[in-house]
Amino acid sequence: MTDAATNMRLKLPIVCFILQIILIILFGTLVQYDHDTDARAWHNQSKSDYENEFYYRYPSFQDVHVMIFIGFGFLMTFLQRYGFSSVGFNFLIAAFCIQWATLMQGFFHGMHGGKIHIGVESMINADFCTGAVLISFGAVLGKTSPVQLLVMAVFEVTLFAVNEFVLLSALGAKDAGGSMTIHTFGAYFGLTVTRILYRPNLEKSKHRNSSVYHSDLFAMIGTIYLWMFWPSFNSAVTAQGDDQHRTAMNTYYSLAACTLATYGMSALTAHDGKLDMVHIQNAALAGGVAAGTAGEMMLTPYGSMIVGLLAGIISVLGFKYLSPILEDKLKIQDTCGVNNLHGMPGILGAIVGAVTAAVATTDVYGKGMGDVFPDVASGEIEASHQGVRQIISLAVTLGIALGGGLIVGFILKLPVFGAPSDSICYEDGIYWEVPGDEEGHEEQLTAVNTAESEKLNS
Amino acid sequence: MTDAATNMRLKLPIVCFILQIILIILFGTLVQYDHDTDARAWHNQSKSDYENEFYYRYPSFQDVHVMIFIGFGFLMTFLQRYGFSSVGFNFLIAAFCIQWATLMQGFFHGMHGGKIHIGVESMINADFCTGAVLISFGAVLGKTSPVQLLVMAVFEVTLFAVNEFVLLSALGAKDAGGSMTIHTFGAYFGLTVTRILYRPNLEKSKHRNSSVYHSDLFAMIGTIYLWMFWPSFNSAVTAQGDDQHRTAMNTYYSLAACTLATYGMSALTAHDGKLDMVHIQNAALAGGVAAGTAGEMMLTPYGSMIVGLLAGIISVLGFKYLSPILEDKLKIQDTCGVNNLHGMPGILGAIVGAVTAAVATTDVYGKGMGDVFPDVASGEIEASHQGVRQIISLAVTLGIALGGGLIVGFILKLPVFGAPSDSICYEDGIYWEVPGDEEGHEEQLTAVNTAESEKLNS
Amino acid sequence: MTDAATNMRLKLPIVCFILQIILIILFGTLVQYDHDTDARAWHNQSKSDYENEFYYRYPSFQDVHVMIFIGFGFLMTFLQRYGFSSVGFNFLIAAFCIQWATLMQGFFHGMHGGKIHIGVESMINADFCTGAVLISFGAVLGKTSPVQLLVMAVFEVTLFAVNEFVLLSALGAKDAGGSMTIHTFGAYFGLTVTRILYRPNLEKSKHRNSSVYHSDLFAMIGTIYLWMFWPSFNSAVTAQGDDQHRTAMNTYYSLAACTLATYGMSALTAHDGKLDMVHIQNAALAGGVAAGTAGEMMLTPYGSMIVGLLAGIISVLGFKYLSPILEDKLKIQDTCGVNNLHGMPGILGAIVGAVTAAVATTDVYGKGMGDVFPDVASGEIEASHQGVRQIISLAVTLGIALGGGLIVGFILKLPVFGAPSDSICYEDGIYWEVPGDEEGHEEQLTAVNTAESEKLNS
Repeated sequence: MTDAATNMRLKLPIVCFILQIILIILFGTLVQYDHDTDARAWHNQSKSDYENEFYYRYPSFQDVHVMIFIGFGFLMTFLQRYGFSSVGFNFLIAAFCIQWATLMQGFFHGMHGGKIHIGVESMINADFCTGAVLISFGAVLGKTSPVQLLVMAVFEVTLFAVNEFVLLSALGAKDAGGSMTIHTFGAYFGLTVTRILYRPNLEKSKHRNSSVYHSDLFAMIGTIYLWMFWPSFNSAVTAQGDDQHRTAMNTYYSLAACTLATYGMSALTAHDGKLDMVHIQNAALAGGVAAGTAGEMMLTPYGSMIVGLLAGIISVLGFKYLSPILEDKLKIQDTCGVNNLHGMPGILGAIVGAVTAAVATTDVYGKGMGDVFPDVASGEIEASHQGVRQIISLAVTLGIALGGGLIVGFILKLPVFGAPSDSICYEDGIYWEVPGDEEGHEEQLTAVNTAESEKLNS
Repeated sequence: MTDAATNMRLKLPIVCFILQIILIILFGTLVQYDHDTDARAWHNQSKSDYENEFYYRYPSFQDVHVMIFIGFGFLMTFLQRYGFSSVGFNFLIAAFCIQWATLMQGFFHGMHGGKIHIGVESMINADFCTGAVLISFGAVLGKTSPVQLLVMAVFEVTLFAVNEFVLLSALGAKDAGGSMTIHTFGAYFGLTVTRILYRPNLEKSKHRNSSVYHSDLFAMIGTIYLWMFWPSFNSAVTAQGDDQHRTAMNTYYSLAACTLATYGMSALTAHDGKLDMVHIQNAALAGGVAAGTAGEMMLTPYGSMIVGLLAGIISVLGFKYLSPILEDKLKIQDTCGVNNLHGMPGILGAIVGAVTAAVATTDVYGKGMGDVFPDVASGEIEASHQGVRQIISLAVTLGIALGGGLIVGFILKLPVFGAPSDSICYEDGIYWEVPGDEEGHEEQLTAVNTAESEKLNS
Repeated sequence: MTDAATNMRLKLPIVCFILQIILIILFGTLVQYDHDTDARAWHNQSKSDYENEFYYRYPSFQDVHVMIFIGFGFLMTFLQRYGFSSVGFNFLIAAFCIQWATLMQGFFHGMHGGKIHIGVESMINADFCTGAVLISFGAVLGKTSPVQLLVMAVFEVTLFAVNEFVLLSALGAKDAGGSMTIHTFGAYFGLTVTRILYRPNLEKSKHRNSSVYHSDLFAMIGTIYLWMFWPSFNSAVTAQGDDQHRTAMNTYYSLAACTLATYGMSALTAHDGKLDMVHIQNAALAGGVAAGTAGEMMLTPYGSMIVGLLAGIISVLGFKYLSPILEDKLKIQDTCGVNNLHGMPGILGAIVGAVTAAVATTDVYGKGMGDVFPDVASGEIEASHQGVRQIISLAVTLGIALGGGLIVGFILKLPVFGAPSDSICYEDGIYWEVPGDEEGHEEQLTAVNTAESEKLNS
């Protein structure tokens, strides 16, 4: 099954080493330890070691890190013959993105005297940006080569940083958990890319685009880790004190309510009243996405639950009714259903954030207004204006995601990146040495390849 | 394989949505952010952001959260064809319980001016209560519908909160890691329920009530996570400072000693001198259960090890010799052996706690007595009296668990909840869309169903 | 398949219980809570509860704990029929080692008035020492009985503590993440042991010394957890404040760069330009190993990346070209390739540490020099001398590892420990009750055993 087109012998090493060497040169030129990480700078301050930012961010960082590498990685192992690629390419892309995002986000946010200062907060932000790329990966899962994915990541990280800068710095929006910057952006960027990469003959690989019993259990590892640590995700970069505390708790209740909604909707809509693993693995997480913007606000616990409930309902309905339409009518082949898990719940989260911001009052926030809405606290703008900012931010995000995805999609269509042919998608054997297993899959694959070669030859 | 009785099309959605809407209404009416979570209240204090409770409890909370969702969930995936239900129903029940427990525990513990105040500590306590329900789930695993489980949870959470209130508030007992409130209560409640739900013809499903190679590996994920994070579990709600530190360390040594005892006992008692995965997956955890009450006391490291050693021995002996007797003579069909992992080690832990409390002296505790035994420190009672309180608490717990389990067991027998018939227990296909796998299980199941239908028709 | 030689009925219980009882007696005689864990001692200080060491070390401890029990345990499940033993023996050895290491390290480091004081830092150090033993376990994986492994652990922990004392206390070297004390020591100790235990007829078990599809996915759970938490590992016992912060960040970038190098090298060297799971599972971690000594120093982010890049390249080349040579020419049968993951990257890390130490200047470290190089800060020695100390430490480590491995290897050759015969290595069925699975492996194994019995009888 040697196939010149998908052979990675030279392509992947060249891309990996060139990217890594560029990263090293740019880090050597531009990046410095920040004041909490640098030996000299830290000891020039009069702070106690206990006050180092590390102790107040690092546990959250590690939870986010688990979501990125285990959560996203295993969530995508549901495909029967794509587990190596799901976890493995997730690992590769993420390892690249956390470095590249440090630079891109640093250019826009962290320059001090010509240098990018880094510490635990930049590490969290880099992981966040990586999350957006992995969401887009979910849309194209099974249909792309690792080189395509790295190329996509180069551009997407850059656009992410631009969008994030526009939203948080230029427009003054709030989006601590990234309903807009991460989920909406990652989803619609990825959906546009997969639209451009539309494969009319993908049904040739249809039999591999489904799960088997054990692959669904591996995927549940991803789901549960994402679900458990989402409170840490949404609260990781909010202001310290009550803000982190409140964000984590709002997210916790949103997720819990979303889970009950997901089980209810799944039994209601699925075949024979049975639960569908696709819903459980994905829709139960929509509550975390939808609490990404408003989680740090005074959303109240029951408000969080209502948001989670709606997110779960929308997400299951999306999987059941909208995804087939998108595929048939709009030619959007969305492998993981990222529109249902990240796209629509992300938009919901953005709207909830805008409404919650617009109704903020000093009566409710007290002196805490400064942490959540500094421009409202300072009297610069009204709360309602903050709501408008949030909605403009959603529009900007959608615009950059769609425009960026369009361009990047066409770049990825260039026939030099080793994409698999339509009949051999969702198959680890293209890019991995796959050990024999107990059911003779290796032989199956060989058969597929032979069939394909014959077609090519004929 | 459509079966009207077990069809969840309407039952599950109705129960999920009714419960969730009740929760939202009650939260809207009764629940408020506490002083460390509320923007206004926090900023009205003169505390530094670093002193927020969040930073001293949240890492423990996340460890407990992993135990509840990954630990319990995957521990139960050992059954060959019940992995979706094990992880999936665990997920559903837990998502409901953490919300319902917030209310029930709040009624008894957290009312401030007619409102329930919530924060990270209430989140930990809600997860704890959920743990008890999941223990009971282990006893009935494979034999209940998700609707039965939710109904059980509604009642069990309520009784848990009553028992917890009696023990900790009315009787003044100490039980930070829940040897009594969580493990003893959850186990004997569940065992009573499974006794009431006794299925005389369960041997028809016997061939599915066992593990396969990979399902045992999935279960080890659950075991190891429970084992690793048990020190966080037992210390999560103790007093801050030395108390949390000491509790975590005592639990660590108890678990380590328990593990050696488990391996020794397993080889000694199992067939051919071989190790039995059932013992390793379960009994090695008994040391954490048994350190649940005394862990925060000055148990000493070697004392903790002795407790762990005893717990491991008791637990393996229970699996080997007691479980078959309970099933044959007392008609208690205990799928996961919760009597061996939670029941007997919980009672051991309660007794160890009572003895350790009774011998407490100011010489050993110094000014730290106030954190562990406030009533002894204040001179209100003698240490020996504290020991008596602990023993009474054990008796109360057993009484409420047995009485409550009796009533709830009969409620669950009502033929409206969609329980599976005897020949089709331990089978995901009843409640889940199961993908084909490599061995044609789907066909097996169909065969089972056909056989059953024929029986029903004849 | 009863085989008297490998029957653990008496051997394993005797060893487990004797070891555990000795541990309890020694703990009872020698071990005490430290000042942050003891109720009386803590409350005699005037510290706030928030200043307890627990809050600044315990999250790191739990990350390390996950690496030891999940990371190492699951990394070794890649073998098709050795998953129970990989996770299970890892669990047993580690549970023993954390207790025994507390004592051995306490003898050398933690004596206060004739007592060993323990707390969260000793727990981390005990887990570290356990890591070294598990590395050695990787070299002999599949070829040893649990009794042999416990005996090996008894000696290796002792030698580890001696080596650690010589390096850190006598020589004044720095090695917070253990490039030398943990990785180099564990690897070369294990490699020497496996050389002494050389099995000329091991090819009889060759067909089982490989992975299957799902076993590689289980192994990826181990890999990813090790990768994610390595920043916590390297920073767990460094000085508080900037030091922990910097170490975590250096390790994070080293690992990221290492991962890109690993993917590039794997595609470059593997068959048909395809990625090899063995490389991804192992070599991607070499960046953590190589940052173990210099991670706490002012290595700079780009310096860390260069170290990671080199480590990844060396490690893949080792797997591809060196391992076969070691096996054929030097008769070193290294099941997990620990030379490539821990050995060579450990030596690289030691050298990087020596160079980085030798070039340290007050200009760069400022008043932070005292935390990293106290003897340089106090003016006792020059920075270059610190570099010399580091290199001597590497030599000492290699000497103790090789000498110790030699002696312990011969001890393990004694025919009383129940080692498996050459034709039945890498097989869970020897020491575990293995459930039937879907492919009739049980029958395969029986066939193997029958064949073997016939051979023995003939």
